[in-house]
Amino acid sequence: MSEKHVYFFEKDKADGNKDMKDILGGKGANLAEMAGIGLPVPPGFTISTEVCNLFLESGHKIPPDVEEEILANLKKLEDLAKQKFGSEDNPLLVSVRSGAKFSMPGMMDTILNLGLNDKTVEGLAKRSGDRRFALDCYRRLIQMFGDVVLEIPKKKFEAIFRAKKQEKNILNDSELPEKALEEIIAEYKALVKKKTGMDFPQDVKKQLFMAISAVFKSWYNPRAITYRRLNNIPDDLGTAVNVQLMVFGNFGESSATGVGFTRNPATGEKELFGEYLINAQGEDVVAGVRTPFPLKELKTSMPEAYRQLHEITTHLEKHYHDIQDFEFTIQEGKLYMLQTRSGKRTGFAAVKSAVDLVKEGLINKEEALMLVEPDALNQLLHPVFDQKELVNHEKLAEGLAASPGAATGRVVFKANDAVAWKEKGKDVILVREETSPDDIHGMSASKGLLTATGGMTSHAAVVGRQMGKPAVVGCGAIVLGSDQKYFQVNGKTVKEGDWISIDGSIGEVFLGKIPTKPSEIIQVIRGKLNAESSEIYQDFTQLLSWADEFRSLGVRANADTPEDARIAFAFGAEGIGLARTEHMFFEKERLPIIKEMILSKTEEARRQALTRLLPFQRKDFYELFKEMKGHPVTIRTLDPPLHEFLPKKEDLMVELAEIKASGKGDKKKIEELENLLERVRALSEFNPMLGNRGCRLGISYPEIIEMQATAIFEAACQVALEGEKIVPEIMVPLVGSVQELVHQKKIIVDVAENLMEKYKVQVPYSVGTMIEIPRAAITADEIAKEAEFFSFGTNDLTQTTFGISRDDGAGFISHYLTHGIWKDDPFGTVDIEGVGELMALAVKKGRQSRQDLKIGICGVHGGDPRSIYFCHKIKMNYVSCSAYQIPIARLAAAQIALKEKNQLS
Amino acid sequence: MSEKHVYFFEKDKADGNKDMKDILGGKGANLAEMAGIGLPVPPGFTISTEVCNLFLESGHKIPPDVEEEILANLKKLEDLAKQKFGSEDNPLLVSVRSGAKFSMPGMMDTILNLGLNDKTVEGLAKRSGDRRFALDCYRRLIQMFGDVVLEIPKKKFEAIFRAKKQEKNILNDSELPEKALEEIIAEYKALVKKKTGMDFPQDVKKQLFMAISAVFKSWYNPRAITYRRLNNIPDDLGTAVNVQLMVFGNFGESSATGVGFTRNPATGEKELFGEYLINAQGEDVVAGVRTPFPLKELKTSMPEAYRQLHEITTHLEKHYHDIQDFEFTIQEGKLYMLQTRSGKRTGFAAVKSAVDLVKEGLINKEEALMLVEPDALNQLLHPVFDQKELVNHEKLAEGLAASPGAATGRVVFKANDAVAWKEKGKDVILVREETSPDDIHGMSASKGLLTATGGMTSHAAVVGRQMGKPAVVGCGAIVLGSDQKYFQVNGKTVKEGDWISIDGSIGEVFLGKIPTKPSEIIQVIRGKLNAESSEIYQDFTQLLSWADEFRSLGVRANADTPEDARIAFAFGAEGIGLARTEHMFFEKERLPIIKEMILSKTEEARRQALTRLLPFQRKDFYELFKEMKGHPVTIRTLDPPLHEFLPKKEDLMVELAEIKASGKGDKKKIEELENLLERVRALSEFNPMLGNRGCRLGISYPEIIEMQATAIFEAACQVALEGEKIVPEIMVPLVGSVQELVHQKKIIVDVAENLMEKYKVQVPYSVGTMIEIPRAAITADEIAKEAEFFSFGTNDLTQTTFGISRDDGAGFISHYLTHGIWKDDPFGTVDIEGVGELMALAVKKGRQSRQDLKIGICGVHGGDPRSIYFCHKIKMNYVSCSAYQIPIARLAAAQIALKEKNQLS
Repeated sequence: MSEKHVYFFEKDKADGNKDMKDILGGKGANLAEMAGIGLPVPPGFTISTEVCNLFLESGHKIPPDVEEEILANLKKLEDLAKQKFGSEDNPLLVSVRSGAKFSMPGMMDTILNLGLNDKTVEGLAKRSGDRRFALDCYRRLIQMFGDVVLEIPKKKFEAIFRAKKQEKNILNDSELPEKALEEIIAEYKALVKKKTGMDFPQDVKKQLFMAISAVFKSWYNPRAITYRRLNNIPDDLGTAVNVQLMVFGNFGESSATGVGFTRNPATGEKELFGEYLINAQGEDVVAGVRTPFPLKELKTSMPEAYRQLHEITTHLEKHYHDIQDFEFTIQEGKLYMLQTRSGKRTGFAAVKSAVDLVKEGLINKEEALMLVEPDALNQLLHPVFDQKELVNHEKLAEGLAASPGAATGRVVFKANDAVAWKEKGKDVILVREETSPDDIHGMSASKGLLTATGGMTSHAAVVGRQMGKPAVVGCGAIVLGSDQKYFQVNGKTVKEGDWISIDGSIGEVFLGKIPTKPSEIIQVIRGKLNAESSEIYQDFTQLLSWADEFRSLGVRANADTPEDARIAFAFGAEGIGLARTEHMFFEKERLPIIKEMILSKTEEARRQALTRLLPFQRKDFYELFKEMKGHPVTIRTLDPPLHEFLPKKEDLMVELAEIKASGKGDKKKIEELENLLERVRALSEFNPMLGNRGCRLGISYPEIIEMQATAIFEAACQVALEGEKIVPEIMVPLVGSVQELVHQKKIIVDVAENLMEKYKVQVPYSVGTMIEIPRAAITADEIAKEAEFFSFGTNDLTQTTFGISRDDGAGFISHYLTHGIWKDDPFGTVDIEGVGELMALAVKKGRQSRQDLKIGICGVHGGDPRSIYFCHKIKMNYVSCSAYQIPIARLAAAQIALKEKNQLS
Repeated sequence: MSEKHVYFFEKDKADGNKDMKDILGGKGANLAEMAGIGLPVPPGFTISTEVCNLFLESGHKIPPDVEEEILANLKKLEDLAKQKFGSEDNPLLVSVRSGAKFSMPGMMDTILNLGLNDKTVEGLAKRSGDRRFALDCYRRLIQMFGDVVLEIPKKKFEAIFRAKKQEKNILNDSELPEKALEEIIAEYKALVKKKTGMDFPQDVKKQLFMAISAVFKSWYNPRAITYRRLNNIPDDLGTAVNVQLMVFGNFGESSATGVGFTRNPATGEKELFGEYLINAQGEDVVAGVRTPFPLKELKTSMPEAYRQLHEITTHLEKHYHDIQDFEFTIQEGKLYMLQTRSGKRTGFAAVKSAVDLVKEGLINKEEALMLVEPDALNQLLHPVFDQKELVNHEKLAEGLAASPGAATGRVVFKANDAVAWKEKGKDVILVREETSPDDIHGMSASKGLLTATGGMTSHAAVVGRQMGKPAVVGCGAIVLGSDQKYFQVNGKTVKEGDWISIDGSIGEVFLGKIPTKPSEIIQVIRGKLNAESSEIYQDFTQLLSWADEFRSLGVRANADTPEDARIAFAFGAEGIGLARTEHMFFEKERLPIIKEMILSKTEEARRQALTRLLPFQRKDFYELFKEMKGHPVTIRTLDPPLHEFLPKKEDLMVELAEIKASGKGDKKKIEELENLLERVRALSEFNPMLGNRGCRLGISYPEIIEMQATAIFEAACQVALEGEKIVPEIMVPLVGSVQELVHQKKIIVDVAENLMEKYKVQVPYSVGTMIEIPRAAITADEIAKEAEFFSFGTNDLTQTTFGISRDDGAGFISHYLTHGIWKDDPFGTVDIEGVGELMALAVKKGRQSRQDLKIGICGVHGGDPRSIYFCHKIKMNYVSCSAYQIPIARLAAAQIALKEKNQLS
């Protein structure tokens, strides 16, 4: 053991620096950095994270050589401070703080004033000339040490403290007289004795080592373990311990303590933002007993300290190239910095500050792009609650944040009601057990969606995101009444027509009507607001245009309607990666024809119905092509099982049973229902996800694909004849063996060639396939001989690779995540070890057969930043996501390209 | 083009031999072989399969050099026969026959008497001294040539022929006078002219080349294409053509033609078996106008020819080391061999003859093992219809041959009825849309099962095989009446109580009662027949004991009950590879406890129900262990979704609707039903196959696994304390990530260690997992760090790899198979390119982490010979299959080991 384990820092001189977070933790590294660049940081030393591991491995012992090293550093601190640890005349006091590489809930809190005991407290009194101050420090130490190290519930101390204030009839802590503080200290010590059987340690070195040990032990407290598991943080990182010379914010009215941001973390405005307390120590700010002042008031109350703080934090921003979140203490008018780190901020603030920092010349474009979490852009694209109103409303429940945005409306339980109420001018939130394709019109008429079951890829979630409707799904706490007139939640009943508000960005449900504000960016995109008049729109587009300079991955949209396509294009989509033809089938005037087609008993009858569908589909495609202005449009042939277009089996059974049991039904009606039921039964499946869908349908009923291909190429020829560029890509879903693709491709190519000959025009087109079942990935070399492009359908691929339906799995999936069986939800982020392995294999095998094979992704993962990183790494050509995720994808694609460039990935 | 394309054969001298099937086809190779070893084969030559490909590639032309080679061989044949092709005095006549490597339906038939025309027919008349005979040959040629080469429907010729017989009032063809034959020939020629616009070719070389071309073209007729696709025969094999000197079975009463087997192909008895016709040519035997005589009568009618035939065919058997299927012609008392090949036989004949041939010293044990198709053993283990009775019954429909054996009984439609009727002593066949776990008692009470839907891995199929009940499933032609009192099939109505008979070995359904005979082997296994008194049992066990000498793959049984285990052990199982604990749950007295457990609202209540289940499970395991006498027993923890144990959602909904609509239900009953429905709804899943099942259940409800582990180890300790050997292997189902296994393993190991300590006894045990979802295969290296063994669950693995549920897929799967999208049903035989790839990967990765990892298979594929070959190739340790498939697996395992040894694989 000859390594260095303890790192000293003092002004202009530090053993560490900001890049040493692995061994010094975040806090320690930044203390060293600040000290090193000459900022006023109280001197001290950091015990490295490696000691934490040594401590934990050796049965909770600090190795003797490390102990020696600590004592040597303590000596150095004594010399520097010209004080002595444990001295009755001039005692050295220190703070002890934990500090891991990543900040983590549940880790040990700060202990201040360590080094005080019954004797040194008098030394401090003497030195400071303020015995009340010294006693206040001592009682704080016993309380913090008792709580944090000895694990005596904090409220026991608080009770004593409160009782004493009451007894003395005192309101402000600072008014407590010495006598009262002495009594409190005595009672605290008695409490410690009672709870631990030991006296509060009078040996200051014992205090120090107990505190250090407590920090290390807290690494394995349950909250920290869970947090690490959920955030993929390795258990062997360990935490560092920072021991630092005390400075006192509670040393009278010219002392203070506070926290702040270099810019407003909500808006990004360039202003010192934060709060402070005069004559207080750190925990007073948190405790909330006294209301802190806004930081800007420091300017008037302590102008010089404010000036220093402003200067230092401006320097810190410049030095760190980012917004800083800092802690400081002012002792008798002198400013000390106690912490600095990158400041957490909203999406609004992230975008604005990133652009501003570039404008101010503090950072370059590449750095700016790395400063914004792609997902945070969501907040800019959706309505938000009016924060001032929010506090007045009761939170009812939490569910999955399935589709971002805030919405408020009256509760309805049926799709038809949603439409009817909307027609009467009422805002509604559609609440259902789970939505189905039958609910589409109601979903469209609603302001937001709330479901009791279903996950991030459930119907409500997918369609919600698709439509840009806020949605909270899988909200298990709500229990729907069987008459569809109310729901219950935690004993409360919410009736049809009651107001609720949902925030789909965070998955929260509130009782009552909370006003929302629309997204400015969307207002601009929709032409309802002038681009020039929206600052955030300007910043947003500025940032994304920088992203486009660096990314290599293409970004397309999943869009089924011309409206979707228009928005996607405005957001920067470079094509459509997935147009789901079946979504077009659900429209009101078409559904009866679809039903007729499905119920047909002969191919002849089926063809007749299809002939009537053809003009609708042709029009859809024509408009899609027009909107995309020459960019490629990938159209998927019919995918879902046919029974999705028919009424549910059990509903028909119940209807029939009711009519029969009531004795009221006429014979013809019963017969009709029975016939319908028979067909529905014949089409119904135990596991529709694994049933007759995708290309299996197209192989069973080639005439459907023929109609779709006809619609596509008639539309394409028309556009081409109008002299416009057009690139249709026809995508066959659910292919598992190349023969399936051969079958479907032949139909499509035959139709295409015939129509191009008929219209005497050439349209460059390609036929490709989804890779969405494991067998397709495994045999991708064979499939690529026929497929001109691949698009990963990662929803289905994840379902089949795991053998889990996300919808059905909602219950155990959340159990898996909370119990650490899974680290991530594979339906949200590509499961790299499993699904990703298959994807990488498919890319490799596919390009073996066809070197220039174009490969994209169109599952929900196409809008997930971490998945986008993965897509980039396996050298896919593009990702396709919903219109509203396009900005996220553009930014994420830029980030991974930059990371790769900087070899940081 | 310098290669040899035509191969001549004559007595004692042949260019080819039996091992040249690739280029000479089966027929040609065997003709060469027979000629070469000096048997009386009419000389001739074979045009190789390569010429077929040349012909097809060059736009249906025979290359000039090949044409020359053919003519040179024809010349050689002329010289040998001392006749001349096309000669008016002494004409050479030949037969032309197709002959591919594998015999194939739809390929071109034989043309006899080629070389006759209006002139040569007189030459033949002169030479033979029998003008009637010559004319008969000529009219046959025109008919065969017209049918086969010119594609004029055969029935047109037959109509002319029949009319002439009628006109002349003649019964036997051979009585037709010259005059009538002349008229027939004239009318035949007129027909040819009318249909083709050309005269019947008088140029004999033109005849020959047209016939050869017709053979080659027939390679691509649709039936042949389909057959090849379904049987995995490459398209580029091509067919050979055999041109051979004619010998005449129609040359008077001392001439004859016939076909036969060296042993009885139904029983394996050593006797010449077949039939012959006197004064006839080959097609007469097939045409069925005259009834042929049994071959043994030849002994009296032509003793010398019979003696020769006996001698020659005995020689052939010895030479080929197998039963031969031969064709012969006798011309004026002289015997000619026209074909020999391996004889098709029943399972009974295959086993008996294989053993007999060894006993007779004709072959060795290894050869004997290769002579029996493993699947053919099925016939020996199941009841068969009395063949004499079968012909009197109408075939109603065909379905999938899901579980072998013949059964007859009265139709019932409900499981409870099956039980009730059985109790009254009636034999029943349970007919259902599809069975479910609720039907188990009724299935057990039935003689056989018939379902309208479902595939080879549907519930009815799996349970049928498991119980050894004949089952025909997926019989789409039957339509069940909604009142469950009848079914309809092709316009016929079959009512409850009507007799039907089903043959699950071939998937046929008959109307009426057809007597069946039980399997002797099963009678012996069940102790109802003395082993010594059953010859077939002796042969069967003899063959399998030889198999055991050569195989390296272990064979285990899937067995859930002590009775299953006993039978499996008697069949030679070396352990249990899969004991499904949930099958034990469905028993009458247990199901209510299971339901109670599932409906429990607290863990506490659930544990109480489990405590009551524990003794049942412990008893099950105790008995299983005892039956297996120290062989390993693999027990799978609970697998199916819990709602399988509850009533169906739609049934409850209908019941509730009926009660409410009728206005009769009392409030309490309604409330009860509503509560039950609520719980069923909560547990119901859209895709149960992808839902909360397998280890996901065990993770959600650890107490269930704890109970099961307790039952296993209490039973194991008890057996161990009784001094018996025991090897429990606990298998965790549906693992997709190693963390799942870690979770379940901990529970099992904790219980095991505690109980072994409690009972003070050591039981060697292991904990492993199923590999049944793609992610498990992909991450097998990680999983093997925890799993002590793997068992492939290929049913689920196939479902998830393809994204297809076999049950739901029944419709399109059969469409896929008949349309050649799939060559094989992956639910019957392992899909080597897809599923097999994952299996091989799992074996490789698994053994990377754990070198001695034991790997088996327990899906239905474990009983499929081709899949067993694959398991052997990827170096698995054992296969596990149903008790009745154990013999098949033993034999298949021996065959693949032998193939490998002989480097034939």
